[in-house]
Amino acid sequence: MRLAAYQMVARPGDVAGNLAAIVDAAERAKVAGADLIVIPELATTGYGIGAELLKLAEPADGPQVQAIGAAASRIGITIAVGFAERDGGNVYNSALLATPAGGRHVYRKCQLYGDYERQIFAPGPVAPTVFEAGNVRVGMLICFDVEFPELVRRLAVAGADVVLVPTALPDDAVFRMIPERVISVRAFENQIAVIYANHADTDPTFRFAGRSVICLPDGSEAARAPASGEALIFADYEPANFDASREANHYLKALRTDL
Amino acid sequence: MRLAAYQMVARPGDVAGNLAAIVDAAERAKVAGADLIVIPELATTGYGIGAELLKLAEPADGPQVQAIGAAASRIGITIAVGFAERDGGNVYNSALLATPAGGRHVYRKCQLYGDYERQIFAPGPVAPTVFEAGNVRVGMLICFDVEFPELVRRLAVAGADVVLVPTALPDDAVFRMIPERVISVRAFENQIAVIYANHADTDPTFRFAGRSVICLPDGSEAARAPASGEALIFADYEPANFDASREANHYLKALRTDL
Repeated sequence: MRLAAYQMVARPGDVAGNLAAIVDAAERAKVAGADLIVIPELATTGYGIGAELLKLAEPADGPQVQAIGAAASRIGITIAVGFAERDGGNVYNSALLATPAGGRHVYRKCQLYGDYERQIFAPGPVAPTVFEAGNVRVGMLICFDVEFPELVRRLAVAGADVVLVPTALPDDAVFRMIPERVISVRAFENQIAVIYANHADTDPTFRFAGRSVICLPDGSEAARAPASGEALIFADYEPANFDASREANHYLKALRTDL
Repeated sequence: MRLAAYQMVARPGDVAGNLAAIVDAAERAKVAGADLIVIPELATTGYGIGAELLKLAEPADGPQVQAIGAAASRIGITIAVGFAERDGGNVYNSALLATPAGGRHVYRKCQLYGDYERQIFAPGPVAPTVFEAGNVRVGMLICFDVEFPELVRRLAVAGADVVLVPTALPDDAVFRMIPERVISVRAFENQIAVIYANHADTDPTFRFAGRSVICLPDGSEAARAPASGEALIFADYEPANFDASREANHYLKALRTDL
């Protein structure tokens, strides 16, 4: 299976422009043989546009989701991408999973980060949901969520073999551990793959860290994007290659039921 | 506060020789200004001596514990060290915490690793206990335990500011992530310090990885021992130096109560 991440420089507030870039990235990933692509948090709107997110938020069956779902089916690739989701009076920081077979699943970020997010979004439920995407079982988390080992563990225990993480990590030394070590350890401590797709460069509010990364069950960094600029990165993932790592580091099997 | 780890080459089955080496390391650490020293798993007996561990196991008020406790009081340093503990018909893979003020606390490893350990030891309870050691609150885990993020989190939530980890990690590529990334991430994701003290070189059964490490709340490796040979390593830990890291990465504060 070939996994991809699209490190994006989103156009602030330009939904049509972002949708075109997302579909273009999915097409290029498909040409390169990818089965699945992860695209950053709030990629359809841009992350740092503040209250404008409330205006651009759409329901889970709105035009943004329909456009991405149609592209997944037409191109023949699974797409995971962040968008602002309106549901009645609430807006969620959500991620869509769209499969070629027509699956449309939405995950809502449950660990919102900082005043910026908490002023705009309602938190999603803590519910480890695993979805089928072709012949692989995937879970989704968004940005800050993945820094909590509890959330990744729940998805792995529920059967996820790959965790998809649209993110918007700022470029600051206090966060450097996250792309450089935390993602790798999340993969290793659950013996799964983790795809971490970040924004790059700047928007009206933030400067992003780039450094998107795809980590495999032994913790190895199979693909890494640079600190700035758009990038499309790929990693081949064959679960059977990690039998020795899984046998030696049998965390899911050894985990005490009273823990 | 100055933290120390003693990377040891234990004498297999030679309790008197190991106790002398442990006390000598504690004395040298004190001379170097350390307040606290961590010494590997089953250090008083050696790790890989198999069924002989059952013969050398002693109760929590036995001569091994008394000797180390007396040394902690005489030298004026807190000592955490692994030993085989007999309690009635069970033997535990335990760690003693001995403080200069006379505190004697025992932790029993709860996540035993592999057939080797499960044939010898009974598992301890999953109980996150935090002890006072001078002006710092410490928790203890042993080897495989610390690879489970759940166990470190429970200690941090219970108030531990430093987690002490006697270990016996074999030298194998499948385990390389543990000293190189997992310990650092355990510190970062809880914004605490973690001291990981390993064996080095060989005993009758195992070749050990060395690479003992002391990590601080921002995930930095403040001290690192080489892959082979004995070593005494030190790190200065001033909690106030990590206010910015704790503020940006406020995992304990943000952790949802329904998680």
